[in-house]
Parts: sequence; structure tokens; C-alpha cells
Amino acid sequence: MSPREPRSTCPIAYALDVVGDRWTLLLIRDIAVFQRHTYKEFEQAGERIPTNILADRLKKLLNHGILAKTLYQEHPKRYRYELTEKGLALRPIMRAMVSWSAQYGDDVVVPKELDTADN
Amino acid sequence: MSPREPRSTCPIAYALDVVGDRWTLLLIRDIAVFQRHTYKEFEQAGERIPTNILADRLKKLLNHGILAKTLYQEHPKRYRYELTEKGLALRPIMRAMVSWSAQYGDDVVVPKELDTADN
Repeated sequence: MSPREPRSTCPIAYALDVVGDRWTLLLIRDIAVFQRHTYKEFEQAGERIPTNILADRLKKLLNHGILAKTLYQEHPKRYRYELTEKGLALRPIMRAMVSWSAQYGDDVVVPKELDTADN
Repeated sequence: MSPREPRSTCPIAYALDVVGDRWTLLLIRDIAVFQRHTYKEFEQAGERIPTNILADRLKKLLNHGILAKTLYQEHPKRYRYELTEKGLALRPIMRAMVSWSAQYGDDVVVPKELDTADN
């Protein structure tokens, strides 16, 4: 993992310190768009996130107040992850990515759940 | 570096394969907003990008058609980097990051060049 202290006061640098990696916004997408909420559901997403990265990113997003978790099973402990207001507010970043990739990406398919025309 | 082959047809995954790291969008910002165009100018930006990462990202962005370079000095060879149309089209992603960070980031200062109210 990269160091986490702020590199500058730049707002783009802040966003990248928090969500600037290849996986974090896919997790946010899974929760916001595809109704995935558990560790197992995240692991089963199409991109096959490695389990050590998944555990790291969930912890980081909880620390940043982007996710909140609730215990839904005691033995063994199982958590359900939800986006906070700060997490839901990341949706315009994802929508801008969808628009850009739809226009310029090869082999990109925009699923109806991500179709920005509806958002 | 992470592997670069597409992980899925998801447009968010595509965008993250191309710009999903801690540095790439800072380079795009430097060119689009702060009129930095040379290797030396990129190195001098506030976040102090490591030189090996800078060289890697410039190469990657040229390969993806996000940057174009022109030779402006022969001995030694020096290049000037500009955003292509595909690169300029990343601006809405950066604007969405600025809005999000301005609202939720600690210690974030939005410079006037990045003030989304003007864009």
C-alpha cells in the first residue's frame, strides 16, 4: 500500500489518496449500483478482487467514513457494508468515468444499471 | 505496476485500468490546469512525483492516447506533453473529485484554477 498521509492540499490529490487505486471505486460501484453488501458478495464480483486487497480496502473505507458496517450474524461474525453520505457522494465521480469510458474505451459495455442517462 | 489487461467490460474498471492510481490524474491536472508540459515541470509539482513513476505514467498515457508529445529540443532530446481530446475529456472526472474533496476532505484547499464554479 501507498502511504496515506496527505501529499498536498489539492482536492484532486485528496480524492486520489482515498480512492486512487484500481479497486476502491469498483467496491463502491458494487454497493451503490449492484446491491452487493457482504464480503462474500464483493469477492464474487466480475473483477475477482484479491482477498487481501478486499480486506485492506474495506478497512480503509471504514476509516475514511465512506463505508459503515453492521453486524448481521454473530457466529461467525458477518458484517453488512453500506455507503455513508460521504460514500454516496462519490457517485458523480463514477458517472464521469462511465461517460468517459463509454466514449473512449475499447471493449467497454455499459450495463443498464450504470447508464448515466438515468442518473 | 498492476497488470494492464482489461479486467472486465465495466466502464468504471476501464477508467481505473487507465487512471486508477495515485498519480496519473495529478499529471493530467498539471497539464490541463497548471500549464505544466515538460518532464521537469511535472517533477516540480507540489506532490513530488518520484521520477520512476513519472516516466512510467507518461509512457502509459502516451500508449493510451491520452497524451501526445512533441520534440522541442534536439540535444539533449526534450519533449513537450499535451493532452489529446481523450485526455481533455478526463476533466469532468477531476471536477467531480474537486467537488467531493471540497465537501468532505480535511485540509483541502481548492485553488482558484480548480474552482468548479467557473467550469
